[in-house]
Amino acid sequence: MFTYNTFVKLNDTDSAGVLFFANIFNLAHEAYERWLDSIGCSISTILNESDYILPIVHSEADYKRPMRVGDEVNIKISLESINGSGYTLNYQFVDKDGQTTAFVKTGHVVLDKESMGRTELSKQLRNALMLLDSRNI
Amino acid sequence: MFTYNTFVKLNDTDSAGVLFFANIFNLAHEAYERWLDSIGCSISTILNESDYILPIVHSEADYKRPMRVGDEVNIKISLESINGSGYTLNYQFVDKDGQTTAFVKTGHVVLDKESMGRTELSKQLRNALMLLDSRNI
Amino acid sequence: MFTYNTFVKLNDTDSAGVLFFANIFNLAHEAYERWLDSIGCSISTILNESDYILPIVHSEADYKRPMRVGDEVNIKISLESINGSGYTLNYQFVDKDGQTTAFVKTGHVVLDKESMGRTELSKQLRNALMLLDSRNI
Amino acid sequence: MFTYNTFVKLNDTDSAGVLFFANIFNLAHEAYERWLDSIGCSISTILNESDYILPIVHSEADYKRPMRVGDEVNIKISLESINGSGYTLNYQFVDKDGQTTAFVKTGHVVLDKESMGRTELSKQLRNALMLLDSRNI
Repeated sequence: MFTYNTFVKLNDTDSAGVLFFANIFNLAHEAYERWLDSIGCSISTILNESDYILPIVHSEADYKRPMRVGDEVNIKISLESINGSGYTLNYQFVDKDGQTTAFVKTGHVVLDKESMGRTELSKQLRNALMLLDSRNI
Repeated sequence: MFTYNTFVKLNDTDSAGVLFFANIFNLAHEAYERWLDSIGCSISTILNESDYILPIVHSEADYKRPMRVGDEVNIKISLESINGSGYTLNYQFVDKDGQTTAFVKTGHVVLDKESMGRTELSKQLRNALMLLDSRNI
Repeated sequence: MFTYNTFVKLNDTDSAGVLFFANIFNLAHEAYERWLDSIGCSISTILNESDYILPIVHSEADYKRPMRVGDEVNIKISLESINGSGYTLNYQFVDKDGQTTAFVKTGHVVLDKESMGRTELSKQLRNALMLLDSRNI
Repeated sequence: MFTYNTFVKLNDTDSAGVLFFANIFNLAHEAYERWLDSIGCSISTILNESDYILPIVHSEADYKRPMRVGDEVNIKISLESINGSGYTLNYQFVDKDGQTTAFVKTGHVVLDKESMGRTELSKQLRNALMLLDSRNI
């Protein structure tokens, strides 16, 4: 698993006094970007140097407890599934008391930049994803 | 069905040149807010005058085609399901050529502001939701 | 002058119950994008077909009255100044009662896409900007 | 001075491949929120427990160099000016090579929550602000 700590910013919240539902995907993707960095495969590298892109084709979130401005957020990324040309990640949001506040999922596919057709996951990415697989622990 | 027209703004997109996946929920909620207005039950009224709130407990999106800056977006809201104290809405995103670019779903529950427990949908909201039910057409 | 009507969305606000200060620039730029569209010079055209870009080198806002979720916003764009390779725009935010809620300014320069050095405003853009000059009225 | 390190997230950028100008205010305010936390005067405390609010009445930014996805950002907050019922902060954005990429300014006033009129800065806040005054160093 990969763990990322951040906090709920004022602009993540809305007039109802809680995290606006769409912004949870920003927090999840921020964690995902830090994970990509940690495996030497940053968004910047993908956009500028690789021959593939990793678009998100599905996303979803289940909200369990309200999150408020200033709240610490601990995001745990794990692998849900992987196949030849795609993968699905889980993000568990945990507050400072260890309570789960939300679950997020993002489904990615690998596309060849030229043909825009499905292509295979790079070995580097596949190996890094396998390390996120909680069944391996 | 309720239909809302908007467009993809520069800040909705990212360095990959397409709509950032999280921002589709902003567009969907913008349409939802306009629908609430149209039935006389605006977010502002809910926050300031009603005895219930309508938090989103689930959201999801399926991305079918990339959306780019300036693209016209037509969002059709329909009712997927409804029960005593909640409802799920579908949002179909259609481009100017009539192609579906994405599907979004939001699941809402009705909570009493004081007890924060489940309560019943108001008649006004229930009736308005029933009009979004495509099976009625 | 160019006028654009929109409204304050829930995600534009924060836990203090008002428009988050940074989001006023999103609303101003949304108006600017609609103006660019109206003169046949959309962001999409600039990014994909032109030999120049129009980066913002300065921005500022003065907040006069709080804006809240659902509030109608009328944005009036006018030209503050123009020179050979740049221009500054003013955005007056007016509520439904005709009260000014904020002033925004954006300063733009014209850069050649290849050299990234200053270049001259196109005739099309210069003419359109002159029509925004309130001194012409 | 107070220093905060963060990075440019994919959603901070736009189709032009650089930080969208409005989002620099989000990064600046994120640093400001961390500073408020560090002096025991968090946004959450202000909203829920204090008798004053600190709305932003002016903001501005000067953009010196483009910032791109993944770029490290070092934000240095210093005090520009202070008076009985308000203060202005400067934020210098520095990249990993020590180059300044932007300057941001936010002007705050202190309002009494009940009367919504100007009131005096708390001693705690005044003392903390004085420590941000670079002339003191």
